[in-house]
Amino acid sequence: MDYLDLMKQLHLEANTKIVLLVMDGLGGLPLTPGGKTELELAHTPNLDDLARRGICAMSTPIAPGIEPGSGPGHLSLFGYDPLVYDIGRGVLEALGIDFDLHPDDLAARGNFCSLDEHGLITDRRAGRIATDINVKLVEVLREVKLPGVTTFVETVKEHRFVLVLRGEGLVDGLTETDPLVTGKPPMPVRALRPEAEPTAALVNQWMTEARKVLADERPANGCNLRGLAKDPGLPKMGEIYGWKAGAIATYPMYRGVAKLVGMDVLPTGDTIESEVETLAEHWAEYDFFFFHVKKTDSYGEDGNFDARVEVIEHVDHVLPDVLALKPDVILVTGDHSTPAKLKSHSFHELPVLFWAENMRSDEVTAFGERACMQGGLGHIRHVDLLPLAMAYGGRLKRYGA
Amino acid sequence: MDYLDLMKQLHLEANTKIVLLVMDGLGGLPLTPGGKTELELAHTPNLDDLARRGICAMSTPIAPGIEPGSGPGHLSLFGYDPLVYDIGRGVLEALGIDFDLHPDDLAARGNFCSLDEHGLITDRRAGRIATDINVKLVEVLREVKLPGVTTFVETVKEHRFVLVLRGEGLVDGLTETDPLVTGKPPMPVRALRPEAEPTAALVNQWMTEARKVLADERPANGCNLRGLAKDPGLPKMGEIYGWKAGAIATYPMYRGVAKLVGMDVLPTGDTIESEVETLAEHWAEYDFFFFHVKKTDSYGEDGNFDARVEVIEHVDHVLPDVLALKPDVILVTGDHSTPAKLKSHSFHELPVLFWAENMRSDEVTAFGERACMQGGLGHIRHVDLLPLAMAYGGRLKRYGA
Repeated sequence: MDYLDLMKQLHLEANTKIVLLVMDGLGGLPLTPGGKTELELAHTPNLDDLARRGICAMSTPIAPGIEPGSGPGHLSLFGYDPLVYDIGRGVLEALGIDFDLHPDDLAARGNFCSLDEHGLITDRRAGRIATDINVKLVEVLREVKLPGVTTFVETVKEHRFVLVLRGEGLVDGLTETDPLVTGKPPMPVRALRPEAEPTAALVNQWMTEARKVLADERPANGCNLRGLAKDPGLPKMGEIYGWKAGAIATYPMYRGVAKLVGMDVLPTGDTIESEVETLAEHWAEYDFFFFHVKKTDSYGEDGNFDARVEVIEHVDHVLPDVLALKPDVILVTGDHSTPAKLKSHSFHELPVLFWAENMRSDEVTAFGERACMQGGLGHIRHVDLLPLAMAYGGRLKRYGA
Repeated sequence: MDYLDLMKQLHLEANTKIVLLVMDGLGGLPLTPGGKTELELAHTPNLDDLARRGICAMSTPIAPGIEPGSGPGHLSLFGYDPLVYDIGRGVLEALGIDFDLHPDDLAARGNFCSLDEHGLITDRRAGRIATDINVKLVEVLREVKLPGVTTFVETVKEHRFVLVLRGEGLVDGLTETDPLVTGKPPMPVRALRPEAEPTAALVNQWMTEARKVLADERPANGCNLRGLAKDPGLPKMGEIYGWKAGAIATYPMYRGVAKLVGMDVLPTGDTIESEVETLAEHWAEYDFFFFHVKKTDSYGEDGNFDARVEVIEHVDHVLPDVLALKPDVILVTGDHSTPAKLKSHSFHELPVLFWAENMRSDEVTAFGERACMQGGLGHIRHVDLLPLAMAYGGRLKRYGA
């Protein structure tokens, strides 16, 4: 039986509040062998106290050795096996710019590229053009119209844009145009199933027209489309967990993923403090809160070890305000590791900290990677975290007699 | 490949004895944060010594967060994934009163209820009538006869009884009659597959007649049937593990489940001492013994922390008599947790202790939840326990060349 089906079958109403505090990319690495990770180095008296009173674990987001993208990392946190459930790249990109994606929209990630006189790609990213040039080119692309559908073209940044087609009967299951190498032309989109043929034809028509309107531009005289996808129609959290879920996130993509799994997205400001205010404001309305902190990841991507330490300390500083709301279950972890040392997401396990009344506390006295390796819940998987949170919150009934 | 199929393929004959000592509901919780669980508080020099010499683990009965019923908890201990194999509630209830269930019998759990003048349920448990009233009502229900099948009605306790239909061609796959709320009438049974239609009609006829003969009774003037089921025809232990298995249990339900998986049920008395005597008496006859201690669970359900501690100490006290028989493998655990604090089964992991000659002992020096979190076998699953016991007992051949 699928785990989500089991949750659907067993979930209970209960008057308990659960907080999932996600520090994006939380897992780190020491800069030198034997050194401390960002989380270990950070001064975190409140997280350490919670670890002392709670129960810890190390958790694998997808599978051992697999480095998660942001979509799969969050799906697994939400209990959806990312090897089963998938959010297309085009959809993620649209969510990432807060585009109001409708359930039947077809979204693609676009990349401006440079073509030679034979139409062969000479630079897949058109020299990573400046974003203000992108904005002008997007204006040009908006001239391209298609019969029976509305098209939206939106700047992301540098060479990246989003194309959205809105209309009746759009079908996904399409190949990408990007040959992934230079010296070849953009490829026509192919339908991976017969029902997608008309949509493939529409997209190819858009590509032909786009090529024409971009022809005189330099260096970006062409483009490619990747990850053409629709809202995957994921089962919604309310149905699975029987709870009302609110999402608090400062970055659009995380709000978007939360929306895809059926959470209400709560308006909030740009700072962690404003996120805590939002949490307090909506405390009575929801059973479950997804609280997302972005900058642990951004500074990891930048390779800024010290700034990551500071963000973690910042979260530690506001933790008492979260605890003052008296959540019945609090779960602190990340969606994946983003060690500053690697300037990238990584596959490494995530430290996990649970506190709830009916847990067995373990011997862990600090929240950190090495400490959590000795955690009382052992080594678990991200998809197991919400079922455990449900159980700690008294929200699951007995299986079988 | 299914794990049980692997065992079928790999099991070996060996002159080794394996004891599975189950303290029902063994896992506990501290009454106050940072305190000790029942097992941690109990004075258990013999179990602690075995833990020191053995190898420990924490084990998940079904899946993280899932609270097991007694049926699934034991199936998983016996190596049967309870998300795949299922024992219907009616069958469990019949086994629980030592009813001699035949393989083709259809069993249901019955609940007396109260109905108003329109036939709507006003109390689903008829005010939890006293068991002696139940006994009289069961006499009344025995008047109801059905064409071509024999019916058995047996008291369980309070408002609960068992109905068994015995005859040719009974088919399960039936819905329940209990609407689970008051203000509605008992519902007719529906067949979930076409072959079950005639059986559904028979059960509905019984319900109609039962309603008539109970009409003048108060407060129990009606009844509902739940969990209509037949013996699930589980693969038998002999075939899977290639061993002769004997079950020693003081409570009928556990003897019943043991019978369903093909164990011989050994007659025993009411005390743990008598169970140990039974073990000694039959030592030569069996390869594998399932030794079940019930009261760790019963006192957990009662919320009696101290009595649970005493039962655990009692088991510790008789352990040397078990070890004196020189088992080659001994495995001590429970089917699920039943913390006195919760007065209920719970999802929490179970401490596990293995002793065998060819194991690697770990650093654990006491048998308890917190100690076992650091056990040398890590965090495992109940369905892995018997395969490990087989291996420790030299009863599995190599897989592949």
